[in-house]
Formats: sequence, structure tokens, C-alpha cells
Amino acid sequence: MKIRVGMGFDVHQLVEGRDLWMGGIKLEHSKGLLGHSDADVLLHAVCDALLGAANMRDIGYHFPDTAEFTDGMDSKVILKKTIELITTKGYKLVNIDATICAERPKMNPYIPEMKACMAQVIGCDEDDISIKATTTEKLGFTGREEGISAYAVVLIEKA
Amino acid sequence: MKIRVGMGFDVHQLVEGRDLWMGGIKLEHSKGLLGHSDADVLLHAVCDALLGAANMRDIGYHFPDTAEFTDGMDSKVILKKTIELITTKGYKLVNIDATICAERPKMNPYIPEMKACMAQVIGCDEDDISIKATTTEKLGFTGREEGISAYAVVLIEKA
Amino acid sequence: MKIRVGMGFDVHQLVEGRDLWMGGIKLEHSKGLLGHSDADVLLHAVCDALLGAANMRDIGYHFPDTAEFTDGMDSKVILKKTIELITTKGYKLVNIDATICAERPKMNPYIPEMKACMAQVIGCDEDDISIKATTTEKLGFTGREEGISAYAVVLIEKA
Ligand SMILES: [Zn+2]
Ligand SMILES: [Zn+2]
Ligand SMILES: [Zn+2]
Repeated sequence: MKIRVGMGFDVHQLVEGRDLWMGGIKLEHSKGLLGHSDADVLLHAVCDALLGAANMRDIGYHFPDTAEFTDGMDSKVILKKTIELITTKGYKLVNIDATICAERPKMNPYIPEMKACMAQVIGCDEDDISIKATTTEKLGFTGREEGISAYAVVLIEKA
Repeated sequence: MKIRVGMGFDVHQLVEGRDLWMGGIKLEHSKGLLGHSDADVLLHAVCDALLGAANMRDIGYHFPDTAEFTDGMDSKVILKKTIELITTKGYKLVNIDATICAERPKMNPYIPEMKACMAQVIGCDEDDISIKATTTEKLGFTGREEGISAYAVVLIEKA
Repeated sequence: MKIRVGMGFDVHQLVEGRDLWMGGIKLEHSKGLLGHSDADVLLHAVCDALLGAANMRDIGYHFPDTAEFTDGMDSKVILKKTIELITTKGYKLVNIDATICAERPKMNPYIPEMKACMAQVIGCDEDDISIKATTTEKLGFTGREEGISAYAVVLIEKA
């Protein structure tokens, strides 16, 4: 057995006139995240952690925000392709643990639905995906609601 | 053997008129961390990492900062209850590695005492708990001494 | 087999009149990172993750920025000594996954050379070292180009 750890960190600006996608689902909020794709900061952090663990570069390398094919892209497609990429190298997921940093909206009510959505895209058990949420107590750019950030760590293994 | 990784991130504001609790002990400093509990940012990051690894939601879910029972709570109690929670799911700690981000006070002299305190609460070997400290070189909210943040990663395993 | 996880986080200010060292190589840029050593923020985060996983304190403990021997020090020497330290405790590297947070310069073209450089210093396979890069979308001190930060997670094992 060959086990590997990976981590991901992502940030997007919070602006008016955009939908707020998080963990593959659309949240109710007055603002949304700005980006070339749907800007799902949680899925992006998870994809970067998976690619990093497998040593297969990063999300910006495979899904550049200057490319036409990523324009408005559903990040669930990015996650699905990321899983396909690490599978080609013989890896499968052990577990994901992620943290969303946002002053608002409250993430906790949405977390079961995010987990179910991500487990379906990845094709894993829901118990292998943990999502947590925290504020930064009004401090920094997430505290001032200028943006939302997300961290993820993952373990993957080769059979 | 089933091994899992988890990560935690926490932030609290640094204000006058509060004690500064860190890693379960009280530090000498002119300011302290603001929070509903004792605001021990290091123990909170560790608890979130443990809960995340075991996929048992997060510290805000189990110990809401709006509840009466968490008012002024000693975070060592939160850590003890967190260990009890992951134990009910069959997990035990492999190791913790945490980082405190603070411009001041100097954390290094206190680290052996923090480790001893946490090992006693958890009921593990001191060698399984690593605590590190760094500044953010005067940058950001930790650099301006508006707050202190902490990161933690953990491995847990099921026998 | 005894496996352990570690994480590191480091920040340095970006200023004029300094070279920009990252992952052991010198990058082309109008500014560089300020520090007592060469301020290679990526190598420092990796060293802290390795020391944390092995529970051997942190980079500030072994290589204080107030000491004469660290003045202008090449961080590849710090990395080499860190590997020697964890080796004395019987540990060897499983894998590293790191993320550089910088608005500029573009890190992606340099990543293969950074990996090759780090693998040579550590004495490991290049496939055991992953380096990723992200911006913080103009937000925070990295977004304002006041500094660069880096995260690293590592797994190490005892034979
Ligand atoms: Zn993104
Ligand atoms: Zn807290
Ligand atoms: Zn440094």
C-alpha cells in the first residue's frame, strides 16, 4: 500500500450579480463568487489537494482560467475529471477533510447536501468526505466579506 | 487499519481585558483572545482537525458559540469531549501537528508546557503532539496583532 | 510501520532590492522576499512540515533568525539539515505537497525545476514532491503583493 497526503487552498472574491456555488450546490445568498468557472472555492481546494497528493500539478495547470473550455464551467465536472486523472495513476481516495472560511452565509445547514453531492461525483462513500465551516471573526478579507476561502486535506492510496 | 487525515483552522480577535489561553495554558500578555469560550485558538484548531478526520462535523456544530453550556468554557473540556466523540467511532490519535500564527507573544518558551497539558487531556504520548509557532512578518491581521490564528493537521486510525 | 503527518505555513514580505528565491531556485522578478536567510518561503514551509511531523520543534527553533549562522543562509542548507534531523529519529519522507500563494510572478513555469532541485537536496524521487501555485484573487496581503505565503503538508514514516 502506498499512501499520500495532499492539501489545497483556494480563494475567490465575493461580488454582487453572481450565484454562490459551494460544494457542488447553489446556496441562497445576496452575493456570489467571482471566477472564470462557477468559482466553487470548496471544490477547487479539494481538486488541488487530490492533484497535489497524486503529484499531478494543480487545478490551474489542467483547467486554466484563460481557456475557453473552462468558461462558466461547473466545478463538479472539474472534480470528476480530477478523480479520473488520479485514477490513471492508480490512486483512489481514502478521505477528504475540508474547511470553508466565510463570515456569511451560514454553511452548516447545507453541509449534508454538499457531502452527498460530492460523494456522488467522486463515487465514494459519504463517510469519506468531511466539510467544516468557520468564520475568521470579522478579521481579514473573509471577515470583511470581500471573499471566501477554503482549505482541504486528502489522503489517497494506491492498491 | 484505517487511517484518516484531518485539518483545522481557527481565528480569534486579540483584545484588551481578556486572558490569553493557548494550548490549554494561560500565557503572560497584555491582551487576550475574544470568544464565547476561553477562545483557545490552538485547541479549537486541533478539535476541528480531529472531528474532520473522523467525519463528525465541526466544533461549531458540537459546541455552538450561542449555547449557554459553552459560555466561558475551558477549551480543554472541548478537547476531552472531542476525543470521546472520535473514540465512539472507533478512532484513536496517531499524531497532531499544529502551527500558531502570532506576532506576539513569543510562543516557543511555552510549547513544552502546552504539549504536556494537551497530552494529559488527550491521554496520549507527548511525542504524538507537535506545536510550532510563526509570525506573519507584520502582514495581515495576525501581523497587525488584531488576532491570532492556528492551523492543525492530524492523523487518526481505527484499530 | 509508523506514519506521521505534518504541516507548515510561512510568510515573507516582498520588497525591492532582494532576489526572489523559491523552492531552491532564483526566479526572475522585480522584487524579492525579505528575511534573515534567503527567505525561501516554500522551503521554509516544507522544513516546518517535516519538523512538525517528526515532532522536532520548528524552523525558528533550529535556525533562529537572530543567529549569525543563519544570516543570508541558503535555505537548501536548512532543508538538508532538516532531513538529517528527522533521519536521526528514524524517519524518512513519504511525500510532500506544497502550495505557493502569490499574485506574481507566475510560478508554474518554474515548478519542474523547483521539484528537481528539492528532490536532489532531499535525496528522494521527484515524484514524492508536489508543488502547486495559486493567487488569492487580489485579496489580502498576498493579493496586494505585499508578501508571499506558502503551505506544505508531508507524510513521513519510520521503517
Ligand atoms: Zn478557484
Ligand atoms: Zn475558536
Ligand atoms: Zn521563512
